[in-house]
Amino acid sequence: MIIIGIDPGIATVGYGIIESTGNRLRAIDYGPILTSSDLSMPNRLNIIFDELNKIIEYFKPKDMAVEELFFNKNVKTAITVGHARGVEILSAVKNGLEIYEYTPLQIKQSVVGYGRADKQQVQFMVKTLLNLDEIPKPDDVADALAVAICHSSCYKFKDLFLMK
Amino acid sequence: MIIIGIDPGIATVGYGIIESTGNRLRAIDYGPILTSSDLSMPNRLNIIFDELNKIIEYFKPKDMAVEELFFNKNVKTAITVGHARGVEILSAVKNGLEIYEYTPLQIKQSVVGYGRADKQQVQFMVKTLLNLDEIPKPDDVADALAVAICHSSCYKFKDLFLMK
Repeated sequence: MIIIGIDPGIATVGYGIIESTGNRLRAIDYGPILTSSDLSMPNRLNIIFDELNKIIEYFKPKDMAVEELFFNKNVKTAITVGHARGVEILSAVKNGLEIYEYTPLQIKQSVVGYGRADKQQVQFMVKTLLNLDEIPKPDDVADALAVAICHSSCYKFKDLFLMK
Repeated sequence: MIIIGIDPGIATVGYGIIESTGNRLRAIDYGPILTSSDLSMPNRLNIIFDELNKIIEYFKPKDMAVEELFFNKNVKTAITVGHARGVEILSAVKNGLEIYEYTPLQIKQSVVGYGRADKQQVQFMVKTLLNLDEIPKPDDVADALAVAICHSSCYKFKDLFLMK
């Protein structure tokens, strides 16, 4: 069972692909998709869509897991990240993936064991659970792997988390 | 010169295609792209992308004009509309269109003549300028035609409004 986790963004999209076999987890590939702020929004969305399509076509994940977006203040940022997330979801649906979403609380709960864990604890557990030599950088990549791990551990109840 | 105006949304995307020849404006086609709330977000984005692609491929507009998004309060709505707008922009860039954006103030200014015009005045001017028998419905469609008209009247200065 191959899962792609996504940390949505416009400058940096984190992606993390893992394979889950029984209780075993294995990182297959992970990294950032980067777009320069010198480019226009349309060009950045185009790059994100094309790069993500290539990654999905190559590794053929079955499910995509993404974090639910929460923004308290900055509506402008919410709209920008919303643009990118829309394109990331489109790439998944065009490639036949099922898409699931999880809150930050659910991700921390399932990766660390409690919902108030801090970023460092999540990153440490990502490294440990996937048996990596070091914590993946930048943070967006570790976050993408975290949501993928969360999906694998919620798998029995996954219908609850299907994107509506 | 063929322009497509877009009023972004997830349940209703308004589109309006006009042809501008010298000082003359002509409506070519307009309508809503509708998606049911029974469908999941991924499926709705997929429908919007495919429908918009078909419309663009058929009418071959050169430029897309969209309204800048402003939300004061509802961040959840901003994110949802942001998803749809991202996919609409992607459809334009994939089809080689240039994309321009205008504020509500600029649209009212150029369609009615002053920036504090109300919705009814904008709709009346859309009907008049395009020589239509009646005001296009729903509002999203009239708004899409308004932003297309705005782009045609700002054409000499269009570089100022290129989406960054």
